Amino acid sequence: MYKLPALDAVKELKAIAVLTSGGDAPGMNPAIRGVVRAALSHGIRVYGVNRGYSGLIIGDIWEMNSRSVTNIVQRGGTLLKSDRCEAFKDPTVRHQAAEILREREIEGLVVIGGDGSLTGAALLAEESGIPVVGLPGTIDNDIHGSDDTIGFDTAVNTALDAIDRIRDTALSHERLFLVEVMGRDSGFIATQVGIACGAEMVVIPEVEFKIQSLCFQLANNRVKGEGSSGIIVVAEGPRPGLTYRIAQQLEENGQSPKVCILGHIQRGGSPTGHDRVLASCMGATAVDYLRAGYSSIMVGVQKGEVLDVPLKEVLERKKPLASEWIAMSSLLHK
Amino acid sequence: MYKLPALDAVKELKAIAVLTSGGDAPGMNPAIRGVVRAALSHGIRVYGVNRGYSGLIIGDIWEMNSRSVTNIVQRGGTLLKSDRCEAFKDPTVRHQAAEILREREIEGLVVIGGDGSLTGAALLAEESGIPVVGLPGTIDNDIHGSDDTIGFDTAVNTALDAIDRIRDTALSHERLFLVEVMGRDSGFIATQVGIACGAEMVVIPEVEFKIQSLCFQLANNRVKGEGSSGIIVVAEGPRPGLTYRIAQQLEENGQSPKVCILGHIQRGGSPTGHDRVLASCMGATAVDYLRAGYSSIMVGVQKGEVLDVPLKEVLERKKPLASEWIAMSSLLHK
Amino acid sequence: MYKLPALDAVKELKAIAVLTSGGDAPGMNPAIRGVVRAALSHGIRVYGVNRGYSGLIIGDIWEMNSRSVTNIVQRGGTLLKSDRCEAFKDPTVRHQAAEILREREIEGLVVIGGDGSLTGAALLAEESGIPVVGLPGTIDNDIHGSDDTIGFDTAVNTALDAIDRIRDTALSHERLFLVEVMGRDSGFIATQVGIACGAEMVVIPEVEFKIQSLCFQLANNRVKGEGSSGIIVVAEGPRPGLTYRIAQQLEENGQSPKVCILGHIQRGGSPTGHDRVLASCMGATAVDYLRAGYSSIMVGVQKGEVLDVPLKEVLERKKPLASEWIAMSSLLHK
Amino acid sequence: MYKLPALDAVKELKAIAVLTSGGDAPGMNPAIRGVVRAALSHGIRVYGVNRGYSGLIIGDIWEMNSRSVTNIVQRGGTLLKSDRCEAFKDPTVRHQAAEILREREIEGLVVIGGDGSLTGAALLAEESGIPVVGLPGTIDNDIHGSDDTIGFDTAVNTALDAIDRIRDTALSHERLFLVEVMGRDSGFIATQVGIACGAEMVVIPEVEFKIQSLCFQLANNRVKGEGSSGIIVVAEGPRPGLTYRIAQQLEENGQSPKVCILGHIQRGGSPTGHDRVLASCMGATAVDYLRAGYSSIMVGVQKGEVLDVPLKEVLERKKPLASEWIAMSSLLHK
Repeated sequence: MYKLPALDAVKELKAIAVLTSGGDAPGMNPAIRGVVRAALSHGIRVYGVNRGYSGLIIGDIWEMNSRSVTNIVQRGGTLLKSDRCEAFKDPTVRHQAAEILREREIEGLVVIGGDGSLTGAALLAEESGIPVVGLPGTIDNDIHGSDDTIGFDTAVNTALDAIDRIRDTALSHERLFLVEVMGRDSGFIATQVGIACGAEMVVIPEVEFKIQSLCFQLANNRVKGEGSSGIIVVAEGPRPGLTYRIAQQLEENGQSPKVCILGHIQRGGSPTGHDRVLASCMGATAVDYLRAGYSSIMVGVQKGEVLDVPLKEVLERKKPLASEWIAMSSLLHK
Repeated sequence: MYKLPALDAVKELKAIAVLTSGGDAPGMNPAIRGVVRAALSHGIRVYGVNRGYSGLIIGDIWEMNSRSVTNIVQRGGTLLKSDRCEAFKDPTVRHQAAEILREREIEGLVVIGGDGSLTGAALLAEESGIPVVGLPGTIDNDIHGSDDTIGFDTAVNTALDAIDRIRDTALSHERLFLVEVMGRDSGFIATQVGIACGAEMVVIPEVEFKIQSLCFQLANNRVKGEGSSGIIVVAEGPRPGLTYRIAQQLEENGQSPKVCILGHIQRGGSPTGHDRVLASCMGATAVDYLRAGYSSIMVGVQKGEVLDVPLKEVLERKKPLASEWIAMSSLLHK
Repeated sequence: MYKLPALDAVKELKAIAVLTSGGDAPGMNPAIRGVVRAALSHGIRVYGVNRGYSGLIIGDIWEMNSRSVTNIVQRGGTLLKSDRCEAFKDPTVRHQAAEILREREIEGLVVIGGDGSLTGAALLAEESGIPVVGLPGTIDNDIHGSDDTIGFDTAVNTALDAIDRIRDTALSHERLFLVEVMGRDSGFIATQVGIACGAEMVVIPEVEFKIQSLCFQLANNRVKGEGSSGIIVVAEGPRPGLTYRIAQQLEENGQSPKVCILGHIQRGGSPTGHDRVLASCMGATAVDYLRAGYSSIMVGVQKGEVLDVPLKEVLERKKPLASEWIAMSSLLHK
Repeated sequence: MYKLPALDAVKELKAIAVLTSGGDAPGMNPAIRGVVRAALSHGIRVYGVNRGYSGLIIGDIWEMNSRSVTNIVQRGGTLLKSDRCEAFKDPTVRHQAAEILREREIEGLVVIGGDGSLTGAALLAEESGIPVVGLPGTIDNDIHGSDDTIGFDTAVNTALDAIDRIRDTALSHERLFLVEVMGRDSGFIATQVGIACGAEMVVIPEVEFKIQSLCFQLANNRVKGEGSSGIIVVAEGPRPGLTYRIAQQLEENGQSPKVCILGHIQRGGSPTGHDRVLASCMGATAVDYLRAGYSSIMVGVQKGEVLDVPLKEVLERKKPLASEWIAMSSLLHK
């Protein structure tokens, strides 16, 4: 359980708004609920914006009450719907969005999404002066400035559940499976899943893949009497098709691997307890930051503590995967 | 709960053997347990054959006791491992297998698998005179002579769980998803899953697919105010790549569908209650049939009753998908 | 997959209504959806009645459309809410309910519930002449005239999932657990769950419980080297407290069992594929029966076939648990 | 993902041993696997001790290899079995245990368990001079010196899954449910579960319970139009029967609550991804600490970092539940 910040309110807010943007992540609903319940408890009106920035720029906005978020804490997806909005890259469009917020006396905006969405948030805040607080909502856990993101834990567990099933067939048929998990250009999901499922190897963008090492390890497993079954977890990586390319290389080396692409199942489903709690408290904390007069920040988690991270800092760096985890992953598969 | 047959034993059996063959299916473990526990309770020795016919022909056989099957009822896969064995198509090889069984005084064999495996079982019984009883073990539910097969219910539920997750993203992003499920050249899994997940359409080999009907229905949904989200369940069908071909056709018609291939997760996982009970009682009943002097039969389910079906009959026909289910599926999506 | 009836419509219906009554069961939502979608596809208006008979007698009724049942197929509980209504036992009150239906030109009522609810349905139909069709909606599977009820399969799987967890502790601590499952005064859930979880013994109302047999079997397991861990599944039975009484008797015989009462978790949760399909087709079939001019019947399943059963027949008998299943359950635990 | 320590080995170890003790917790198996794999990779022999201290004092010890821990990462319970051992409180018995370890040239012991087990570990290390490293293995999360314990995350998710089901019935019947969760005399599980399930109230030992506040809040919910359904999560607390006492008080105040005691299901089941990763890396880190010459410490997590905590410090204090989480829990239910 994280340490939560203690903040003094310096502003009386009339109304705030909340939106979800980019790829959906399990936990967006409890995050919305956290924002709504915290705002209402301080007498602040809350507006929900439909379809992320796409809804904001056309004023698709509605007032939410306590009942709007009843019975959603356990639902995947986002009740506010989400979208990737190209138009929001245009400053004129963002200016328009700010006008729409001002018309409704909205004095703060909470944006839940990945780094694309947070970039939009930072620009909107800077240009319009409207306070904006971001929440890291993405299954990929690739947001600099936060050790954890909303949806990551659920995605890991969903992938694990799928791989536990695949392991049954791998063992029954003494077969090798390549299982591709999500994660864009980082290996967070793959490493966590690989350790947790007892994978024979994890292929991630952070480490150069060599077919020889893989073949060597597979031969080694056989020598140790572990048979020819196995699970290799592959991070999708920046270029599509990696898993199929590895499968082909394995075939050229005398293996007959099967390929599974887990795909979109990793985005959905009821959020785990961890993600529900993280999202709920980040949502509530976002309201506290707005009341304390902060803007252009993201609510992040660092060293077990929930805190504010300047959006600028969040967006200018890539979050690295700690090398000790890569080592740990390889140690445990031996 | 099925009606179970009441059989009189006419033979004293010294020993029987059990093997699992072909693609693994959740429920093979409780089926093995049913065979083992029932045999032991009648004082019959039981041998387990590893890796299906591949193990049989090299004598990879071991004696099982009650503890061999402790704590396996809830495990996916098969503790006896499975294989597809090309060599068993050769009569000389089958002759050899029969010799191996006779050497161990094995007077009955239980084969758990799909139609390829049951074909081997029928030939072995006919040529060698060793009594063989088959159990329909396949997630595809495509065995003639049995309304239900071991593993089908679990596969349907696994696919459903995945699609319920995908639905979260479909709704949040108002997106159309094509989800490919298993089932070889029949539409049992797809139809059952389609009805159960509330799919907008089901594409199965039994019904000619027309891109126009699909586009028409999608347009219709939009008119009714159901938005542009949707799930289309596609049976993999006899030729790979169908789902991607449909996606392309949809794109040519102005849609932007996403594709998910559920793949091997459908084969594994802890069997459902239904599959555990079906498999357990089929396993125990197979022993009863052997004791009653039957051979060359499969234990099947028809009209709510567990009964014997001649293997010959099982293998000469293809099991049709009832047209009323196709109609029901289309009615409920309206 | 069940055989579905083919019915000819003889009546043009203007409107029908649907309600859920008694204890909720997973699958009630897909049943409602089946009724609504089938009715709309035939141009029949559909009304939803809130809170079962309690809502009917005060006219808490609303018109449903296709969107009313969007995205509910996977939800537990019932969107129409449910209640046990004592007042409906009074003929005057039922007369009033009939008036309310007539005022809205409702020419058919679908009642989803257990035997108490179906009794109300039968009386309403008989006294008012308004056609009523019942669906067996109860986790207990104790409705005469149907081999299967909506919710039973889900309840069995939920109980199994819980017991699979308890088994981990039972094995780790070599402990004996008594697990109480629902089922009112019948042993359907307990027997199915007991077979599926590999229980050491099943205690059901249909078979007299003798502490000596249980102690004998536990001693026997130890002799066979199976250790002292074990799961005993106990059906709640007609009188509360049975499981604690057995625990005490075991303690007096030198055992130290732990007790778990699974309780209400068995009523909820996303319905299984089986229950979604069963409920969907029973709901759609109920509409067909109303259109074909039937009344005072229940949609049931017998011998693998969906058919009509006179409510009178349903209500005058108790459904027995087949003795062969009791024998099977005891065979597999040996 | 936690920061892992970087340690220099100062000792060559011939052999170490590992045991699990006290109540079992999901994740004990991956913890054992972490110890075994890490030790083997450094050329250290590893012994498994069966049944915790009970096995240690009778020398029930076996040598493990890499295959001993194959395919266990996803299993609940502990393959080494566990026990609460009263005899180990006797110094003579502990002396005997040390002798048994020395005879086998075991130069380090890893103990996985709760505070009772860690007390035994501290005494054994102090008296015998054999290096001992503890891992916090308990679902209750009540170990001072570590923000997280092995099994807590899984227990929270299991309880949540159960409560999500109960919520279906609560909503369908507009009923109030009191759900009792584990946690001994602390409210960690209850608070986490309460936030995550959207409970109307959480009753924990850390906050004095007043029936008036609860009744007031329930009345308030009704005024806000949230109906009379609700979930109240109750921590079991130090004295059994609390939940029933609250139920009775509610009845005296005109409510009709239902009671569910979740019980032992919270101890079992496949560990979550979080618990598998935490346990794996704690297990591997324990070996690193032994190689670095540490003793009488526990591997803990503080501020997002895995580190060593003196056992003395662990055992002399009670871990408090942060008041900000109590406030957060109450804020979100409003």
